[in-house]
Amino acid sequence: MDPLLRIDRALETALARAAGRGCPNGLAAALRYAVFPGGARLRPRLCLAVARACGEDDPILAEAAASAVELLHCASLVHDDLPCFDDAATRRGKPSLHRAMGERLAVLAGDALIVLAFEVLGEAGARRPNRLAPLLAALAGAVGAPAGIVAGQAWECEPRLDRVEYHRQKTGALFAGAAMLGALAGGAEAEPWRAFGERLGLAYQVADDIRDVAADPTELGKPTGRDAALGRASAVRELGLDGALLRLEELVAGAVAAIPPCPGAADLRALVEHEARRFLPKSLVRAAA
Amino acid sequence: MDPLLRIDRALETALARAAGRGCPNGLAAALRYAVFPGGARLRPRLCLAVARACGEDDPILAEAAASAVELLHCASLVHDDLPCFDDAATRRGKPSLHRAMGERLAVLAGDALIVLAFEVLGEAGARRPNRLAPLLAALAGAVGAPAGIVAGQAWECEPRLDRVEYHRQKTGALFAGAAMLGALAGGAEAEPWRAFGERLGLAYQVADDIRDVAADPTELGKPTGRDAALGRASAVRELGLDGALLRLEELVAGAVAAIPPCPGAADLRALVEHEARRFLPKSLVRAAA
Repeated sequence: MDPLLRIDRALETALARAAGRGCPNGLAAALRYAVFPGGARLRPRLCLAVARACGEDDPILAEAAASAVELLHCASLVHDDLPCFDDAATRRGKPSLHRAMGERLAVLAGDALIVLAFEVLGEAGARRPNRLAPLLAALAGAVGAPAGIVAGQAWECEPRLDRVEYHRQKTGALFAGAAMLGALAGGAEAEPWRAFGERLGLAYQVADDIRDVAADPTELGKPTGRDAALGRASAVRELGLDGALLRLEELVAGAVAAIPPCPGAADLRALVEHEARRFLPKSLVRAAA
Repeated sequence: MDPLLRIDRALETALARAAGRGCPNGLAAALRYAVFPGGARLRPRLCLAVARACGEDDPILAEAAASAVELLHCASLVHDDLPCFDDAATRRGKPSLHRAMGERLAVLAGDALIVLAFEVLGEAGARRPNRLAPLLAALAGAVGAPAGIVAGQAWECEPRLDRVEYHRQKTGALFAGAAMLGALAGGAEAEPWRAFGERLGLAYQVADDIRDVAADPTELGKPTGRDAALGRASAVRELGLDGALLRLEELVAGAVAAIPPCPGAADLRALVEHEARRFLPKSLVRAAA
């Protein structure tokens, strides 16, 4: 089955559980709004691709891991968009959650999505009790303190931002986590997959910086030019557009080189190279072709 | 060892992990501010007391379960205090986290505490893999959607508040969760302990309503009279002070009656009756004596 369908089906199941008996209507609607329609679902697709490359002996566990990763990504988008952070008006081509349903439901939906991610993983992990603790550790490490997404976002509150840690935590950590959870769900060790995921995350961050200056806002589903407007660090501001494109190419090559030995290494390599082209704005891909 | 010392030691260990390598200073400080000094630590003490009543064959797992419960309670206080909800100026006798460190760190500290709770449980759960999935299910059920604390708080966003669900979810759920996690950590079944925890949670809610009208703000560590000021449902508004005191007595008796058969049932019963008196403002206890 197509990975996107597998992911969306697993997310539907998770949301149906969260919207079960007793759930206030507003919260149920907010959870759905935060998760559907999705973006590119890059992180859960990465998770499934690594699980498959490792032999994927338990597809249900892999789908649970992938959806846990995506639920946490959605939670981070909802909270990052809040008025006290980016105050983003749009996200994934529609009004941000707090603009659509109010700040209170945006705070609560983010909280509930974090909990749901661990719940989904725990339920599927009951099938493989010995994999559950490492899966939880990889997921929590990717998201919490000291070095997950939340910590990355907290660098924005520091008087001096450590740019390397900032990008590693805010973007690299969940890519690394997605790869590591995929490996664990597929019956392999997690740690050898960290570098692969981290490099992909850094590549994605550079691609995101490029899209912020070069993409069409309609294609992107959110406003462009935000990095410059908010004075944020950006690979394009630092290296120029050509320099950033070169850096992206290096990072993707580095990620591919970091794929550990596994049954599906060749397919995974081809997939990464294919996907890397999709990271970029269509106009740049057309120009390069 | 004194339960409070066990809990605080486990919380210290958890916070030290969260403030580890790479953690931005502000986030590390905010996490500590949210957790120390504590309130009465009622929920984790309930968790430890139930684990002990069930025979507690694994004290480290019981302490992890108790600290996970408290971390989630602290997270909910920080987010409930945010300007978009109660905009509370003080909490536990000091400025609320967002007043002290800003709204952004308050949002992020709450998020990181939720993640940390699951991480702490996962790490200790590696010792007893077959208990981990049920522990996770009980914890997530107490906190997330459809019927945990977050759902309870979301009733405040509904046009019509379902008061029974509101209190059951916002307060009862985590007390039930604390009891159920204690049972699971102690090697027993969770479900028989749900009613005991829920009734204690409802009793606590009534006691909290009583304290909101009858306590000294210094004793309480937060402002009094908030229910009336915010037009919130309250047992005192509904039943009067005497009626609320009677209701509290009934709920405590109902909780004691719901203690399932277990090796330490008699001690647990005595503890609950002792603690129930501590729920109340000192002035009322003195008046009743």
